Amino acid sequence: MKTNEQLQVYSLPEVEHLKVHGRTTGQLLPLTLFWTGSAVELNVQGSELWVEVESQYDMYESWISILINGVPVSRQMLMAGRYWVCVFRGMNADVVKNVRIVKDVQAMSGDPGCALQIHALKSDGAFLPVQEKPYKIEFIGDSITSGEGAIGAKAEEDWIPMWFSAIHNYTFMTAEALNAEYRVISQSGWGVLTSWDNNPKGNIPEYYEQVCGLLTGERNEALGAGDQHYFGSWRPDVVVVNLGSNDGGAFQSPEWKDPDTGKVYKQRLNEDGTYHEEDLAAFEKAVERFLFKLRKNNPDAQLVWAYGMLGFPMMPAIYRAVDAYTKGTGDRKVSIIQLPDTTEETVGARTHPGELSHRRTAEVLAEYVRGMIG
Amino acid sequence: MKTNEQLQVYSLPEVEHLKVHGRTTGQLLPLTLFWTGSAVELNVQGSELWVEVESQYDMYESWISILINGVPVSRQMLMAGRYWVCVFRGMNADVVKNVRIVKDVQAMSGDPGCALQIHALKSDGAFLPVQEKPYKIEFIGDSITSGEGAIGAKAEEDWIPMWFSAIHNYTFMTAEALNAEYRVISQSGWGVLTSWDNNPKGNIPEYYEQVCGLLTGERNEALGAGDQHYFGSWRPDVVVVNLGSNDGGAFQSPEWKDPDTGKVYKQRLNEDGTYHEEDLAAFEKAVERFLFKLRKNNPDAQLVWAYGMLGFPMMPAIYRAVDAYTKGTGDRKVSIIQLPDTTEETVGARTHPGELSHRRTAEVLAEYVRGMIG
Amino acid sequence: MKTNEQLQVYSLPEVEHLKVHGRTTGQLLPLTLFWTGSAVELNVQGSELWVEVESQYDMYESWISILINGVPVSRQMLMAGRYWVCVFRGMNADVVKNVRIVKDVQAMSGDPGCALQIHALKSDGAFLPVQEKPYKIEFIGDSITSGEGAIGAKAEEDWIPMWFSAIHNYTFMTAEALNAEYRVISQSGWGVLTSWDNNPKGNIPEYYEQVCGLLTGERNEALGAGDQHYFGSWRPDVVVVNLGSNDGGAFQSPEWKDPDTGKVYKQRLNEDGTYHEEDLAAFEKAVERFLFKLRKNNPDAQLVWAYGMLGFPMMPAIYRAVDAYTKGTGDRKVSIIQLPDTTEETVGARTHPGELSHRRTAEVLAEYVRGMIG
Amino acid sequence: MKTNEQLQVYSLPEVEHLKVHGRTTGQLLPLTLFWTGSAVELNVQGSELWVEVESQYDMYESWISILINGVPVSRQMLMAGRYWVCVFRGMNADVVKNVRIVKDVQAMSGDPGCALQIHALKSDGAFLPVQEKPYKIEFIGDSITSGEGAIGAKAEEDWIPMWFSAIHNYTFMTAEALNAEYRVISQSGWGVLTSWDNNPKGNIPEYYEQVCGLLTGERNEALGAGDQHYFGSWRPDVVVVNLGSNDGGAFQSPEWKDPDTGKVYKQRLNEDGTYHEEDLAAFEKAVERFLFKLRKNNPDAQLVWAYGMLGFPMMPAIYRAVDAYTKGTGDRKVSIIQLPDTTEETVGARTHPGELSHRRTAEVLAEYVRGMIG
Repeated sequence: MKTNEQLQVYSLPEVEHLKVHGRTTGQLLPLTLFWTGSAVELNVQGSELWVEVESQYDMYESWISILINGVPVSRQMLMAGRYWVCVFRGMNADVVKNVRIVKDVQAMSGDPGCALQIHALKSDGAFLPVQEKPYKIEFIGDSITSGEGAIGAKAEEDWIPMWFSAIHNYTFMTAEALNAEYRVISQSGWGVLTSWDNNPKGNIPEYYEQVCGLLTGERNEALGAGDQHYFGSWRPDVVVVNLGSNDGGAFQSPEWKDPDTGKVYKQRLNEDGTYHEEDLAAFEKAVERFLFKLRKNNPDAQLVWAYGMLGFPMMPAIYRAVDAYTKGTGDRKVSIIQLPDTTEETVGARTHPGELSHRRTAEVLAEYVRGMIG
Repeated sequence: MKTNEQLQVYSLPEVEHLKVHGRTTGQLLPLTLFWTGSAVELNVQGSELWVEVESQYDMYESWISILINGVPVSRQMLMAGRYWVCVFRGMNADVVKNVRIVKDVQAMSGDPGCALQIHALKSDGAFLPVQEKPYKIEFIGDSITSGEGAIGAKAEEDWIPMWFSAIHNYTFMTAEALNAEYRVISQSGWGVLTSWDNNPKGNIPEYYEQVCGLLTGERNEALGAGDQHYFGSWRPDVVVVNLGSNDGGAFQSPEWKDPDTGKVYKQRLNEDGTYHEEDLAAFEKAVERFLFKLRKNNPDAQLVWAYGMLGFPMMPAIYRAVDAYTKGTGDRKVSIIQLPDTTEETVGARTHPGELSHRRTAEVLAEYVRGMIG
Repeated sequence: MKTNEQLQVYSLPEVEHLKVHGRTTGQLLPLTLFWTGSAVELNVQGSELWVEVESQYDMYESWISILINGVPVSRQMLMAGRYWVCVFRGMNADVVKNVRIVKDVQAMSGDPGCALQIHALKSDGAFLPVQEKPYKIEFIGDSITSGEGAIGAKAEEDWIPMWFSAIHNYTFMTAEALNAEYRVISQSGWGVLTSWDNNPKGNIPEYYEQVCGLLTGERNEALGAGDQHYFGSWRPDVVVVNLGSNDGGAFQSPEWKDPDTGKVYKQRLNEDGTYHEEDLAAFEKAVERFLFKLRKNNPDAQLVWAYGMLGFPMMPAIYRAVDAYTKGTGDRKVSIIQLPDTTEETVGARTHPGELSHRRTAEVLAEYVRGMIG
Repeated sequence: MKTNEQLQVYSLPEVEHLKVHGRTTGQLLPLTLFWTGSAVELNVQGSELWVEVESQYDMYESWISILINGVPVSRQMLMAGRYWVCVFRGMNADVVKNVRIVKDVQAMSGDPGCALQIHALKSDGAFLPVQEKPYKIEFIGDSITSGEGAIGAKAEEDWIPMWFSAIHNYTFMTAEALNAEYRVISQSGWGVLTSWDNNPKGNIPEYYEQVCGLLTGERNEALGAGDQHYFGSWRPDVVVVNLGSNDGGAFQSPEWKDPDTGKVYKQRLNEDGTYHEEDLAAFEKAVERFLFKLRKNNPDAQLVWAYGMLGFPMMPAIYRAVDAYTKGTGDRKVSIIQLPDTTEETVGARTHPGELSHRRTAEVLAEYVRGMIG
């Protein structure tokens, strides 16, 4: 191999016009990408580009996708270690390439050892400004929003990072359709009130105000995952909340016993199979509280509760909760949209929405959001 | 990272039920994958699998795609060196996974230093038999068959491996649709008689009987690229020849002067823009000769000349050539099919057929071949 | 023309195995088809079939579509008069043909002179049994359900029968997908509480218990349009209510003054453009009352409020109304589904849903109903 | 019914800006529409339009389709007799409507009694100029081009006019895509040399120079069907010939014995199932002769042989024939295109191409023709 003698290494702070996507601590030495869809974006005028990554994990490894001029061309598992990955080489040095290196897997609350960091870039070219997009969207969700099952054969059943995709994902597709910048806050199995298995700690709202507070372990602590997120740094025009599927599932799942306190948690069904009124009310209260928290931190954003990709049994409760919130506050910038249900034709791996289901949702959601911000 | 203590390294000859796709020398220590679409296929009952690759190049690096249970989940550039790539990890150890590790780039006649080799596998599981497919198809072609431009933005113009795809490719798709095993012999820019720029050395037929004779350089020589291919080892039911586009292009391109002999080559146009009769006859003769060579080496195969994805100006000449061949031999197992032309809607990078064009061709070609072998 | 000497005329009561679709009075001498989608269906073993129709109107003429073996082959305006229409001729006399002659236009509340009647049939063959379908669905709606704009160019603006279709219609498509028999109760411009222009008489619930009570004039009276409908005669498994679009429109439209009483009606907007709480409550109350009436008459049916093809501003109110109904009654067989909104791509004539929008709704609705009755 | 007192009757010669499509004798008192796709086109500024038709037949009745502003809204069988058909009514009198009344069935060589005539129009409005289209295309073909089976259930087997469509037809669709005026010369079962059953009288070329010479009987004679067509009156930019399917079928069909002379005709197969060389040569000669005839009458047109919708066994022979023609004449404005084969998914009634097959052909053909005339 002929070595390219023109390559120069840049630590991230040295990279002009570096665009970072996703909530971070602001730290660039190195940059930690927490959430799925988080990315570095660059406009590179050069023939070659490398990125120095560091991947760590106890159980769940990170994956990245690389997009050149908006098209995904590479997707790879990042084995443990710190090393250079070549993004492109042999290209016309005079032409500007838009590059996105995207974390393709959700933040892993179940693996305190999991982290993906970017240390440096290496190129023979120059870094030019990345064009700002006119809109910002924040997506908040569970496994659906994490793109679980959006890639892989229908037969797949393992819960592993390989079946997660940030790109075959309605978040990415909706943002592309709207020419919007976007961020994702999501966790498989989690809900507004509890996780699918009735664990009250598996709720997104509690961690919403931190950079990535659902991560555990000392290393993540040290990386600033638990830091307060400064909402002034990035003000979304629209906040899309795709939560409720696991809250619905909790009614169908066994109780959860807190190993520390012995306390038992369970969203109950009535004997006729309907939801226990009190427990449903607790869910509604949680939705309402989350809306308050979202509004507090996003004073001007449209709040859209978008739900239905894996059925929509919680929809009446969501409507009641939004009603209660609106009535209590007079806040009119909150609405609900039902997303296209996943069918046999559109399902993916792990009985989750497949790429086609994500695409249909993106069409519907983009159309709806366009009506708000267009 | 917790190390998987159960992993065992296997040199390829030790791997039971290893299935190798594509023409090779038979050598497994290591295995050299020459052509695009060449692959190793395995059924692995285990939780983790690694592959040891060795990638070398002066200019054009190799890429691989990884398919798990038939679905592409990873695509990556193979930087120079010899190293382990993790194929999957953390999976249910009891479930059998079908795995294909596919060379995603054509043999590189322009880079004598380019080679992709597989040394070993590493797993904690067992290798089980891979099911034999009922049919075998050989595809012979140029850049179209190499999947040039089948991935990447339409704006891309660089001639680099990144824009080649063995998977977004009618060869792969046709074989999938027919449940057939397949091999590819292809080279961008080449034709039956000459390459697009009138170089008479850029013709596929001359190298058809070697393992991968169009490769150059001592290393490829040593790897056996120039060895005679033993046709008895793999007998295709159908040979699809998708050549002619560059022979047509040669009429529109400047002459080529042999640097060694000074001799000039040119497929000429008449003043009215039509093809010079003598030169067209030379092309037809080359098609006819290639059919003889194909038949000699594939006595029972259906020969299908499949042409038209980038226009079809050579079609009358191809029909004449096949007519002449059939008349001369009485051989009736030769036919021609026009493939769907690429449109503005289906074009990909480098003004080559995009994934959608490949898909349309695959539909038409699979239907046609099904009628022959069904 | 050679006359078919074998043709015999049958008054409808003489026709064996005649299947009548749509609410009627039971009268067959002649049969009056009131609602869109109403039809006669036959299995004819013969070479030729004619139908004697009588069409009357002051303003809005009737149209019919003819389906042979499930495929629409003819659609025609029925000019005024009583005459024979040839359904088919020259066919194989031994083969059984399934025939449906379908009223393609809604009941016309605005034209007291409009009526479509069927007097007799003429054939050289025999009438065989029509296979019963396993499910029954009743659709209740407005212009969307009447198929207004489902046929015709996007530029069309005239309010005329030509642009109405019972076939390019989600009702027909949903029923086909589910192999269900179906009926339609619908009227353009009407709602649950008022019509789009605030006229309180333009509400469907008031006429739900009559055969076709929204028709006016003496002739319709004489035809029995105002008769009480006997619900025991046809018990739907599912009642789909697609109402609310015009109730929403009333908020945006000028007041309506009753010419008789001088009383003024208006669903008011607040100054900030939101719905006036009191008026919205009146709508909700109307929804709730309609659910009571539906349940009274359809004790076992699933009631599905299906809304959203032209936006969904009333959805929160519909959810509240259904909540109130469910809470008050304990009735759990009531649910809500949001239908796919019409987009620039799927719109038809008169800025109403086009055929493609109807198709998308049918896919979603059929999937949903299948989950209930499957 | 309120009669529209403003209606005025116009004999066709009185209708300003009347546009007649399809070959006719020029006679307008009345106008006879011979071929499928023949039509009258009008721009009407008025509220109401009627057309006076006269339909005659011994066996095969005529059908018409009506298009308003380019969209088919009505399709109906024309029972025998002379009578008025209402095209539209109740429309905005100030708006201009483009109207096409299209013969939806082929000329019927098998029914000397079949004729469709238009006598007069009736309207309350004015007839405005119809915009000329920039291109003219002539389509010549067999049952495929007649749209046989393009409408109706797949199970249909009767050979009746109901299953013919000029609109669900690649001719109409191609012309629409290219914004071209078009004419059709077609006959089910016919070929270049013989019909499907080896009858040498079933060849299109023999009648190409007459208005509609394949019609028989005294009435058609009197209507001028046998008149010489004056080619100067309409000069197509492109002539598309979709013939060969029945010539291919003749090889598979029993011989035909001329009832007058007792002479027997048969395109023979060799014992190995291949075509008899001599008979194939006769077909090729017929193609070549037809090209001469087409060129003589269309000195400037592009001639396109478009073949393959029901398989393409004659393609080599067609290529040879075109080769021979081109070699003999130097005429370069002749080319061949293979059309998409009909598949299980795209087939229609009577195992003929369905609407979807016609659509695919139209896409391919429009793209190809656009490259010639664009």
